[in-house]
Amino acid sequence: MSLKLYADSAFTSPYALSVFVALKEKGLSFELETLDLDAAANKNPAYRSQAITGRVPCLVHDGFALTESSAISEYLDQIFPAPAQRALYPTAPQDRAVARQIQAWLRSDLAALRTERSTHTVFYQRAERPLSAAAQEDAERLLAAAERWIQGSHLFEDWSIADTDLAVMLSRLVMNGDPVPQKLKDYVARQWQRDSVQEWLKRINR
Amino acid sequence: MSLKLYADSAFTSPYALSVFVALKEKGLSFELETLDLDAAANKNPAYRSQAITGRVPCLVHDGFALTESSAISEYLDQIFPAPAQRALYPTAPQDRAVARQIQAWLRSDLAALRTERSTHTVFYQRAERPLSAAAQEDAERLLAAAERWIQGSHLFEDWSIADTDLAVMLSRLVMNGDPVPQKLKDYVARQWQRDSVQEWLKRINR
Ligand SMILES: [Ca+2]
Ligand SMILES: [Ca+2]
Ligand SMILES: [Ca+2]
Ligand SMILES: [Ca+2]
Repeated sequence: MSLKLYADSAFTSPYALSVFVALKEKGLSFELETLDLDAAANKNPAYRSQAITGRVPCLVHDGFALTESSAISEYLDQIFPAPAQRALYPTAPQDRAVARQIQAWLRSDLAALRTERSTHTVFYQRAERPLSAAAQEDAERLLAAAERWIQGSHLFEDWSIADTDLAVMLSRLVMNGDPVPQKLKDYVARQWQRDSVQEWLKRINR
Repeated sequence: MSLKLYADSAFTSPYALSVFVALKEKGLSFELETLDLDAAANKNPAYRSQAITGRVPCLVHDGFALTESSAISEYLDQIFPAPAQRALYPTAPQDRAVARQIQAWLRSDLAALRTERSTHTVFYQRAERPLSAAAQEDAERLLAAAERWIQGSHLFEDWSIADTDLAVMLSRLVMNGDPVPQKLKDYVARQWQRDSVQEWLKRINR
C-alpha cells in the first residue's frame, strides 16, 4: 500500500495542513512531496495528469489521485476506518452533517478575512494593517458561529478534522492579535498542541 | 416529517439549485421559502439563529438546520437512502471520492469565471464582455477536467448530484456562447432536461 501527499513547499496551504493532520491522526505512513506554487509547479503537465484540477493538496493512494482536502479526509475515513484508525468525522448523522457544513463553509466563505489574514501571517510574519470593514464582518460571523458550535474541548464529543480546519481559520485572528474571546483562544491552543499539528509546524520552523 | 428549503428569491444561487434538485431527485416533499439577498434577508437575526453562518441555501429537517449544499446532499443521502429513494452519490469509494472532489472544487475555485459568467448571465441576461485572461484560464481548466471526467452520459455509472453541479458550471460558458466542445454541450443539455432541473427553471421563468 502506498500513500503520497503533494503539499505546497511553503507549508502555508491550510488544506494541505488539513490532509497532513488527517494522515497523522490516522497513524498512516506516507511520502510527502512539495510543489513550489510560486513557480507554478502545480501547473506542469506531469502534475496535472494526476491532479486533474491542478490543485494542492493531492493524495495518491495506490495510483488513485484525489484533490480537495475535504474529499481526501472523507476518503481516508472510509478506506482506513475506525476503530482500527482514529475517526476523522463524528458518527451521528447530524454531527457529521455539521462537520461537513463547517469544512465546506471555511473553504468557500470569509474571503476578505482569508486574504487580509493569510496563513503566511499565521506561520511567518504578522499582518501590518487592521482588518477592513469586509474582513471585520467576516471575523464577526466566524466568531459568532464558533461560539455557537464549540461547547467543550471540541466541536463534537470527540476530536474531528473539522476542529483542525476551524482552529486554523480562528488562528488567523489569534496570531495577528485581533480580538478573540478567551474560550476560542483556548480552543485554538488545544488544537495547536496536537502532535499531528505540531508535526506540520516543525516543517515550517526548520 | 418536515423539510423546508430556504433559497434566494432570484433563484440564481447554484447551491440552492443543487439542493432543490437533490430534494426533487429524492422525491421528497418540501416547503420552499425564498430570501431576498439584495435586501440582506439572510443577515436578519431570525434567519441567523437557524442558519448560523447566514448562508443560503439552508435546509431545515424536523428542526435541524443545515447550510452548505454539499453537506445537505450528503445528509439527504444518509437520511433518505437508496434504494427507497434515488442515490445522490455513487457507492464505490473512489467514485464517491471524485464526486466529492468535484463538488468541493466547483465551490472553491474558478472565481474569475464565476464572476464574469455569473448565474445571472445563465438564467436572465447574457454577459456582454469576453472573458478576461484569468477567466479564460479558469475556463480552460474546467473544460480540460470535464473532458477527462465525463465518459458517457454522466460522470459515473449513474446520475449523481455532482453532474448537476458540473453542468451548471459548464452552462456559464455554454449559455454565453463561449467555446465549449460539443460533447460537453450535449452533457449540459442532458442534465438540463432532467425534470428536477426543469422544475427549478420554471420558477425563474414565471
Ligand atoms: Ca516558493
Ligand atoms: Ca460540543
Ligand atoms: Ca432581489
Ligand atoms: Ca464515466
